[in-house]
Amino acid sequence: MISRQQLIEQIKRKKSFLCVGLDVDIEKIPHFLLDHADPIFEFNRQIIDATRDLCIAYKPNSAFYEACGVKGLESLAKTWKYLPADCLSIIDAKRGDIGNTSDMYARAFFDEKASGLGFDAITVAPYMGHDSVSSYLNYPGKWVILLALTSSAGSKDFQYLSTEDGFLYEAVVKKAVTWAGPDRLMFVVGATKGCEFTDIRKFAPDNFLLVPGVGAQGGSLEEVCKYGITKDCGLIVNSSRSIIYASNGKDFAEAARAEALKIQVQMKAELEKAGII
Amino acid sequence: MISRQQLIEQIKRKKSFLCVGLDVDIEKIPHFLLDHADPIFEFNRQIIDATRDLCIAYKPNSAFYEACGVKGLESLAKTWKYLPADCLSIIDAKRGDIGNTSDMYARAFFDEKASGLGFDAITVAPYMGHDSVSSYLNYPGKWVILLALTSSAGSKDFQYLSTEDGFLYEAVVKKAVTWAGPDRLMFVVGATKGCEFTDIRKFAPDNFLLVPGVGAQGGSLEEVCKYGITKDCGLIVNSSRSIIYASNGKDFAEAARAEALKIQVQMKAELEKAGII
Repeated sequence: MISRQQLIEQIKRKKSFLCVGLDVDIEKIPHFLLDHADPIFEFNRQIIDATRDLCIAYKPNSAFYEACGVKGLESLAKTWKYLPADCLSIIDAKRGDIGNTSDMYARAFFDEKASGLGFDAITVAPYMGHDSVSSYLNYPGKWVILLALTSSAGSKDFQYLSTEDGFLYEAVVKKAVTWAGPDRLMFVVGATKGCEFTDIRKFAPDNFLLVPGVGAQGGSLEEVCKYGITKDCGLIVNSSRSIIYASNGKDFAEAARAEALKIQVQMKAELEKAGII
Repeated sequence: MISRQQLIEQIKRKKSFLCVGLDVDIEKIPHFLLDHADPIFEFNRQIIDATRDLCIAYKPNSAFYEACGVKGLESLAKTWKYLPADCLSIIDAKRGDIGNTSDMYARAFFDEKASGLGFDAITVAPYMGHDSVSSYLNYPGKWVILLALTSSAGSKDFQYLSTEDGFLYEAVVKKAVTWAGPDRLMFVVGATKGCEFTDIRKFAPDNFLLVPGVGAQGGSLEEVCKYGITKDCGLIVNSSRSIIYASNGKDFAEAARAEALKIQVQMKAELEKAGII
């Protein structure tokens, strides 16, 4: 379990606010790993060992593990157990359902005894409202990371609809901050246009924002920091494909480290610029 | 794989448009089943045997299986394999993510070779837009069932926001019907207010609507039919808890059958009233 305070201390200590996204596709990992009994776990183990001092969070995306069925779920459970205790463990699951079903999802991802998984945080989809969120908040100290603005083309379809309460993504943030404080609630905010962070910060001045889309999805770290950084940093920037698939050879872990280091160096500069370290 | 035409024929043959929701909580099934190697599968097997001639679809909710970790996923795979070939198999997963991740979810639920699961249809959350849907449509003959209006209290938080394009749930339906025809796309429409069906039918006149919330969640079948039925029926009404937990004793399967039969008799009357049979 990682509290807000521990998260902030870790960011200052590691001079990083990097999250490594473990979106591991069995078809994309180096071929020689396929000889291992559990190639996906072996890949993750080496990626984690190579990056743990450079990042403050890991985020497996559940879909990639589910795509391999029972074996995938076994790899996910082993990966979760292997995550460093000081790093925030986020399951990117984007779940959302009515209350009694969300209770089950909370059990699936937060209750190690029931499911073998005990993540610190989960991404949640807002469409079904408060029901979808409250089950997770019943677990003391665990985090909900609610989708607000995503970085995909499809985000334009609904998230930018003008509603009686601003754009839909604004309405989501405004409502959700009434459900939990910044010690339990973060938002996913896609990084394709930095200036949108200004807007989110009006309603969520202190919440950590989980930012996908830097790297493979094309966002700029400088832009994100310019508009989104707070006195406590307030940002967790995820990079997945550009780190984990930096090389497809025997050197994949070193290449991942080099890529993570490149980002960490930029992050250190941004933290200094903001006077946080 | 069940086509629209096969679905309609099945409805006429069975005089039913019932979907049995397999939302199976290990803590709620009859105690004596816990002696079985796989109690959840054993429960489902008996429920399926007892109801297969009375319903036209089965819908396990993924959350309930995920809550049991690897064992739960094994029960789900066995359950899916056991589903009768003439019934539509729906996985209620409410997934929604960017394109490359939705590809993985599609693999997880549609591609038996990869994951051990090959459902006919999946429920999908609309928040992330077209990306979230297109991956599933790439599988010929498979169905997407998009969340439009849900029956929970939380549905009020966002689904009823007034947007530039009507209520949010209306905007979702209007946009989604441009992505696929009624042979591939259905909508989830909660049944707490029947008159809302009239509204949905304006934009989705021919799509099948998957209706949760009849039974435990309090909706009325008569109301749903009055406003939602079409010349092809166009409705799949789900009941879960009221059927599967009809009894907690040795007679749980017979009690489930009795409950399903009660609903099927009502459905037959509605189909006759509408001139469909």
